Amino acid sequence: MSTYEQNIKQLKETIKIQRYYGSINSLMAWDLWQGLPVDGREYRQSVTGYFIKEASNLIKSNETKKLVEYFRELDDNRYENIYDKAAARVLINKYDKAVKVPIELQIEMNNFTSTAQMAWKEALDKSDFNMYKPYIKKSFELKAKVAEAIDNTKNPLDVLVDDVDEGLTVAKIDELFSELKVAIIDILEKIRDKNETIDDSFLNVNIDKENVKSICSHIVENSFFDKNKGTYQEVLHPVLYGVGPRDVRVTTNYKRLIPCIFSMLHECGHGIYEYSGNDKVVEYSLYGGISGTMHESQSRFYENLIGKSYEFWQYFYTFLQSEVNEFKNIDLDKFYNALNKVKPSLRRLDADELTYNLHPIIRFEMEKEYFQGNLKTDDFYEAWNAKYKEYLGLEPKNAKEGVLQDVHWASGHIGYFQSYTLGNVYGGQFRNKLLEAYPNVYKEISFGNFDSLNKWMYENIHQYGNLYTQNDLIKKATGEEIKSKYFIDYLYEKFL
Amino acid sequence: MSTYEQNIKQLKETIKIQRYYGSINSLMAWDLWQGLPVDGREYRQSVTGYFIKEASNLIKSNETKKLVEYFRELDDNRYENIYDKAAARVLINKYDKAVKVPIELQIEMNNFTSTAQMAWKEALDKSDFNMYKPYIKKSFELKAKVAEAIDNTKNPLDVLVDDVDEGLTVAKIDELFSELKVAIIDILEKIRDKNETIDDSFLNVNIDKENVKSICSHIVENSFFDKNKGTYQEVLHPVLYGVGPRDVRVTTNYKRLIPCIFSMLHECGHGIYEYSGNDKVVEYSLYGGISGTMHESQSRFYENLIGKSYEFWQYFYTFLQSEVNEFKNIDLDKFYNALNKVKPSLRRLDADELTYNLHPIIRFEMEKEYFQGNLKTDDFYEAWNAKYKEYLGLEPKNAKEGVLQDVHWASGHIGYFQSYTLGNVYGGQFRNKLLEAYPNVYKEISFGNFDSLNKWMYENIHQYGNLYTQNDLIKKATGEEIKSKYFIDYLYEKFL
Repeated sequence: MSTYEQNIKQLKETIKIQRYYGSINSLMAWDLWQGLPVDGREYRQSVTGYFIKEASNLIKSNETKKLVEYFRELDDNRYENIYDKAAARVLINKYDKAVKVPIELQIEMNNFTSTAQMAWKEALDKSDFNMYKPYIKKSFELKAKVAEAIDNTKNPLDVLVDDVDEGLTVAKIDELFSELKVAIIDILEKIRDKNETIDDSFLNVNIDKENVKSICSHIVENSFFDKNKGTYQEVLHPVLYGVGPRDVRVTTNYKRLIPCIFSMLHECGHGIYEYSGNDKVVEYSLYGGISGTMHESQSRFYENLIGKSYEFWQYFYTFLQSEVNEFKNIDLDKFYNALNKVKPSLRRLDADELTYNLHPIIRFEMEKEYFQGNLKTDDFYEAWNAKYKEYLGLEPKNAKEGVLQDVHWASGHIGYFQSYTLGNVYGGQFRNKLLEAYPNVYKEISFGNFDSLNKWMYENIHQYGNLYTQNDLIKKATGEEIKSKYFIDYLYEKFL
Repeated sequence: MSTYEQNIKQLKETIKIQRYYGSINSLMAWDLWQGLPVDGREYRQSVTGYFIKEASNLIKSNETKKLVEYFRELDDNRYENIYDKAAARVLINKYDKAVKVPIELQIEMNNFTSTAQMAWKEALDKSDFNMYKPYIKKSFELKAKVAEAIDNTKNPLDVLVDDVDEGLTVAKIDELFSELKVAIIDILEKIRDKNETIDDSFLNVNIDKENVKSICSHIVENSFFDKNKGTYQEVLHPVLYGVGPRDVRVTTNYKRLIPCIFSMLHECGHGIYEYSGNDKVVEYSLYGGISGTMHESQSRFYENLIGKSYEFWQYFYTFLQSEVNEFKNIDLDKFYNALNKVKPSLRRLDADELTYNLHPIIRFEMEKEYFQGNLKTDDFYEAWNAKYKEYLGLEPKNAKEGVLQDVHWASGHIGYFQSYTLGNVYGGQFRNKLLEAYPNVYKEISFGNFDSLNKWMYENIHQYGNLYTQNDLIKKATGEEIKSKYFIDYLYEKFL
């Protein structure tokens, strides 16, 4: 075996073991919601702390250091294939971050976010922002420390955004968001009157949880989701956990049928991306997909560009009518119009496809102001309400309707919200290319044939896992960098 | 710090880390039923394999070896307290087993049992013993290998029994079981006619799962179980997983109300024992209780000696009537008599308190014949049916009603079944002492006061975790070794 081959072998082994640790960590994160009893939390932190440290010791070991040095000095053209090269890139990133961010801070971050998420849940139940204040404060402070440890020459938000969305900057996001805001506000003004007359009250049906569950799983499993690779659980907040290369956990909330359908489509969209790495990608432990915008583009694509299309319901509405008595006398057009009624709302997860984009923008702007030193987390309640008033014309009556609605800031997802709206932007680009490749794709969907859709997604995005960076993949799949044009065109086409 | 103190410190640290590995392993075992999708199984085996090996490497390391040697040579009277001594005993046991059983066999056993349990579930669904044959065969073969690795001078079943129930032998079990069989058959003959007239058909009520769940949790939480230390999940087979010192997972099946009440009482009985180690026991990582008979004595005590007592239902029956319409016109005596109707049955988990004891005896006898070389696993279906015919006068119509009803042989619990019946025997001994200490304990229970019961259990059993061996603890708590007399007396008293 040549030195190169030996090093590649060791590289694959090293990443594989890091993924093993990632796997148990992800299982424990899922279990936080899923099974962990209150009095088990303290001990759980010792367990996660121990394994985070073990993984860190391995990545910072002398063996890994030598390996990293070897690949850092290796010329790009010396790699025998793209998998070797990608694995080296991933290892170097992991190593640099492990060396830069002190292990004590990593463990503190992990322990703190698990505590903070439970505190968030209690604050949400009581709709009490004051209870949440110390947690959100510390969460931002810890993330600032992480950002400084990675690169103290930049604004922390730029570092955090780059950590989620490699290659993206706050300035670039600002540019994209301004273009979007103009378009959304323009469309909103043009359709507001027409939309106000649409009746969507009938969507609020009363169905028991078992039925909601079976309807939602029927829909995702008959369009794209492979139930042999994922299981569903009911918890408060819909989230997707990737536990292994062919193992994802969809959590959702079965309380209300229509929101549940779309949150299932969303999380299963993450799921199919997470579990669809090709065999080579799995062999190199590069499975799971690219975090941030690319991942959100997949969830939001299935949720909206597919799940809120007319053709999707041409196929599924008969089934839905057979399951829900209240829909028996509602025709498809009325149902479709109600689903797509544009109406500014207070909750991100209840928002229509158009105004949704403003919700992450509000959160991103608050993060920006915080890191510019112009806003304190203690004032997030008021700042949130003021922005909702300004952008959506609505003001939350309490913290539950407002600043407490998302778990993200408690779970350490700071510098993350932009990815939802940017995921939509990617979605517009993908849709454009998908239609070029398969002009009849939506027509096929109306007959229940999802093959072209899923094939395009697999071939262009899903199979690659983390093989490429986000910027490289969007260029490979669409020939262009991120561009708001296609998504804006789509919004005009759909809503006007 | 003296050498002794340094070694004790290292001892505590070593056991603690072994428990961390145990904790993730237990979480993954629970997750097998709870969340793991089919296509995730293969990867899961790599993950568990890796961590089992890591834990084994740590326990077999030179540092641990030196530590073990130090404590092996240390005089018993040199230990400064019982915790130090117990921790040394636990470490030496763990070390010896790790050294004796090859790591490849440990990993094979772990991977095989997770596959076999899933195969068991499929075979059960199809009631097909042929599907199960290769798995049960290999399970017994692997366990025989484990037994030989531990001690090849004894019959493998003696080794396996000692592994579950330290200090117990097949000969001793045979002796206890013969005494029991005589008594049970005697009682059975005396009450058969009277019992046949008892109507228990009304127990089969039709209630939805959500209600079953809330009734069962109300009962366990209002008698002894602390919901901050455990969570419930619905799966096929009721089991208790201990994940941390204050963290247990109760799995059960919410299909039928009455069986569910008793399986919840049973599993939560394991639970309270598992999570109730005192602070010192937790500090030394000796929490969780003694496996085998001692653990089963606790689950079966709460299930039967408490849960099937008249006084228990004097307290809870009003609540049950308020939740179940069908019980409104059934009086307490009729309900109690139906619950305690003695009627030989095919399913262990449905058995009455008297004939229950024969079910584990049948399984234990089959294991014995297997390890004597007189019975092949391929013939377990017929052997099972013949024994049910002989002992209980009933013959299963199919494998689902018969040999497939328990997961144990698939999960590697071979040499385990005796502990259920012996747990009842312990229960009789505990009940005798409990009544000496608190003569009014059952009367108190009839008023909903469980303090004396829980206090006695905590003080005499629960708090100690693994501090003592099984034999030492039964002597400490009752002044005697295991003896069938008290349980037999109890059975005569209750049923005649």
